[in-house]
Amino acid sequence: MDLFGRDFIVTQEWSIDQLRAALDLAAAMKRERFHPRFTGILKNRTFFMFFYNPSVRTRQSFECAATELGGHAQFLQPEGMRLKTATTAGETVEDAAKVMSRYAAGIGIRILEDKVPVYGAGNELLREYAKWATVPIINMADDKFHPCQGMADIMGWAEWFGEGSGRPNYENLRGKNFLLTWASGALARSWCSVQEAMIIASRFGMNVTVARPEGYDLDPEVVAWTKANCEANGAAFRAIADPEAGYDGAHVVYSRNWVTPQAYQDGAFQKAIEQKKSAAHTGWTTDARRMARTDNGIFTHPMPVDRGLEVTDEVASGPRSAIYDVAENRLHVQKAVMALTMGNI
Amino acid sequence: MDLFGRDFIVTQEWSIDQLRAALDLAAAMKRERFHPRFTGILKNRTFFMFFYNPSVRTRQSFECAATELGGHAQFLQPEGMRLKTATTAGETVEDAAKVMSRYAAGIGIRILEDKVPVYGAGNELLREYAKWATVPIINMADDKFHPCQGMADIMGWAEWFGEGSGRPNYENLRGKNFLLTWASGALARSWCSVQEAMIIASRFGMNVTVARPEGYDLDPEVVAWTKANCEANGAAFRAIADPEAGYDGAHVVYSRNWVTPQAYQDGAFQKAIEQKKSAAHTGWTTDARRMARTDNGIFTHPMPVDRGLEVTDEVASGPRSAIYDVAENRLHVQKAVMALTMGNI
Amino acid sequence: MDLFGRDFIVTQEWSIDQLRAALDLAAAMKRERFHPRFTGILKNRTFFMFFYNPSVRTRQSFECAATELGGHAQFLQPEGMRLKTATTAGETVEDAAKVMSRYAAGIGIRILEDKVPVYGAGNELLREYAKWATVPIINMADDKFHPCQGMADIMGWAEWFGEGSGRPNYENLRGKNFLLTWASGALARSWCSVQEAMIIASRFGMNVTVARPEGYDLDPEVVAWTKANCEANGAAFRAIADPEAGYDGAHVVYSRNWVTPQAYQDGAFQKAIEQKKSAAHTGWTTDARRMARTDNGIFTHPMPVDRGLEVTDEVASGPRSAIYDVAENRLHVQKAVMALTMGNI
Repeated sequence: MDLFGRDFIVTQEWSIDQLRAALDLAAAMKRERFHPRFTGILKNRTFFMFFYNPSVRTRQSFECAATELGGHAQFLQPEGMRLKTATTAGETVEDAAKVMSRYAAGIGIRILEDKVPVYGAGNELLREYAKWATVPIINMADDKFHPCQGMADIMGWAEWFGEGSGRPNYENLRGKNFLLTWASGALARSWCSVQEAMIIASRFGMNVTVARPEGYDLDPEVVAWTKANCEANGAAFRAIADPEAGYDGAHVVYSRNWVTPQAYQDGAFQKAIEQKKSAAHTGWTTDARRMARTDNGIFTHPMPVDRGLEVTDEVASGPRSAIYDVAENRLHVQKAVMALTMGNI
Repeated sequence: MDLFGRDFIVTQEWSIDQLRAALDLAAAMKRERFHPRFTGILKNRTFFMFFYNPSVRTRQSFECAATELGGHAQFLQPEGMRLKTATTAGETVEDAAKVMSRYAAGIGIRILEDKVPVYGAGNELLREYAKWATVPIINMADDKFHPCQGMADIMGWAEWFGEGSGRPNYENLRGKNFLLTWASGALARSWCSVQEAMIIASRFGMNVTVARPEGYDLDPEVVAWTKANCEANGAAFRAIADPEAGYDGAHVVYSRNWVTPQAYQDGAFQKAIEQKKSAAHTGWTTDARRMARTDNGIFTHPMPVDRGLEVTDEVASGPRSAIYDVAENRLHVQKAVMALTMGNI
Repeated sequence: MDLFGRDFIVTQEWSIDQLRAALDLAAAMKRERFHPRFTGILKNRTFFMFFYNPSVRTRQSFECAATELGGHAQFLQPEGMRLKTATTAGETVEDAAKVMSRYAAGIGIRILEDKVPVYGAGNELLREYAKWATVPIINMADDKFHPCQGMADIMGWAEWFGEGSGRPNYENLRGKNFLLTWASGALARSWCSVQEAMIIASRFGMNVTVARPEGYDLDPEVVAWTKANCEANGAAFRAIADPEAGYDGAHVVYSRNWVTPQAYQDGAFQKAIEQKKSAAHTGWTTDARRMARTDNGIFTHPMPVDRGLEVTDEVASGPRSAIYDVAENRLHVQKAVMALTMGNI
């Protein structure tokens, strides 16, 4: 499975065998975190982390990943970089990407909804870098996708369905019911994490239910991918507007706030408007009563959790919460992806 | 002396044997700074440095410490971290600390007086992190304490009283006279460094004199600890309001500006008011004439020095100034504390 | 060639043998980038990068350099550093430099025209640090000089004139024609890179032509050095005001925007005024027609390139463009300079 030099923009663009290669390596790295066969993979090598949007979790986990592989992740912010834009002089992406390729083993980019004028522009910027760079581009979350989160999600769920073995069991996820439900929340969340969750669940053979208020549909292209993935796996896909029904028989519950398709207006992400719209929908919080309707389901979330709105404390901190395990897995899957795409292994 | 996993919030909470274990390791690390038995202690491990307040000295010395132990210190600032506050949605300290514990070997936190509404709130935040984290919390200076500065101070003084051996002699400090004197200064300094100095001097058997203008008392609880430490060691404690008398017979002179107990008003640190109050007190500068009254005393200061106000250039850059040695010791004591609390030694 | 402990402020202050020692080591490091004899030179050592001005390229290349030598570069910004100024209390350069010397193997400083009141003040600050520090000061670009850029330039040109050997041939540069031409541009560039290019070209025996509009003379002292270097090498120096003539027979063409000697007024760098002045001069863009007048010349530029103004896309991305090679060489020459001045080799 030679993934050296490959970009990682969205999980949908890697084959299931490629994803499994990364996930299996991640599991090995989690079992023997500081084994010498891992700790020199990026020795003396640099990974550029390019944060158009700041982030703590993503920065922490990627920088730790580079350190644990023996390399170094540089924390870079674009305000220090005089890039050409439609209205200002500066360096082109071509020039920036070509020079960075001379210095680094790989480049991570994070650009979210509030830094782009229209949905998809962030993802386009990643693809522009990928066009010119001769080293891998790793998506550290853009306005459409968050592949490392999706990988951490599926690994965490597979661990919880590992029947006590302590190891992820991806076969056990086949035919299980995944509920992705919109949730109340004060933070006007983007689509990248939830879309990636929907894609990855369907790739691994889960039945997918998306529950959301009317008007909260996600990207039609991503929904189409998800449906096709389900169909290829003999699994079911449905979208419902009922905040309760999806919990019945669910095995994995993912509740998170997200914005409407009208979130981008007048060339900007309208956070305040979306927060107001979101507040109009009540009764979309995951609580113990709802979890009791599931088939002994686990609770999952990409964090940070908006406790009390997206989910109650009782569930988020309860015995069937996978949130910290999933968060930890960010480290392991990112180490595996970096090792496979950039490492001398 | 198993200190693995221990928090380091204030020196008073470690036993004298524990402090000596760290100081003795620091001295060994200073003698053989890059010896292979030290350079891999944190190999591939991450130390999170969480700066609510920026800092150059603390950041430089902690980041160097991690590098010299073979690990990596991540420089993190809370503006990148969407933490929940009384008025804003975001992540709880519980969630942040639990996830960070999955990634890192330890967490350093720095939060000073201007970032908290009342005295003690910064220290409380550290203790909240310590409650939830499963890795050590290291105090990189809060509004009450600065334990790494205190350790660097006592190590530096013990080196100067090492009778030319080049090694610290802590026994020689017993019964010596420590003068902690308030000083003029334009920067409205907090209490953390001077309180830690008072505590550590008294722990190591020094007689403690605190000289300050009326109205400049320090935290009564810390004063009580200091008195108790002196009593336990058969040493003397006194507080005086005379700017001159404390120098007579002093062996270690520490002159620094600090604020009044009324510095926090209306939910904020009143820097401008304190600067004005401070300016009203003149004649509180350490100079060569005053140093001549000491028993061949050394001058110490945690830096940065407010030259001309806290101390004259002649003394700060003079032959009995320990300031650069103390500053260097920050590196060595921090390496030792990190090695003992986080390292695989 | 013992360069341990040497500052690197401007190439003119190193002998040609010293420069060649660094350039030859850089070439060896480029050929075998991760050879074990290089990857431990700064093991566990810290290099402070002190950025009064942010920078992406300089930061990327220096931080990579430290990583590739086994060490770590700390990214520091002065706003976190309470330095004394004419009007504010804070730490003196003496104190800062003395303490930093206790922690680090070397200190890089970058301070450009917009952070200083008069031309030369940035360079003076570097020399103030160099006066007090006991470790090397490396100029990461100041308002006068940019020695690492100059080294990367000459290495890149020598590679292109290496007659297909893939190795730099410095002898082949002797007697070749170097055209440094002012160019249109929207960014009001400082003098540091172009002055360093002029110095280094003349040190290595090239004939130097400076083409610029009337009123765009560079620092007379640097021009005098350049003339003296040319004379010592039996090479020619000329300054012309014609935007075309310099291309005839040129071997290396360097076109870049720069400001007038009146750029500093009223204690500040007048960027807007200079941009306006610059816009008044048209016809100063390097294009394919002009390159056709050269003796199969190469195009060089320190990047970022202001495409369309300083040079056309056709030339900048063309087959005789050395810009990416020169940019890559920043890494190698900086590794070499750091290894020689700070490393245990």
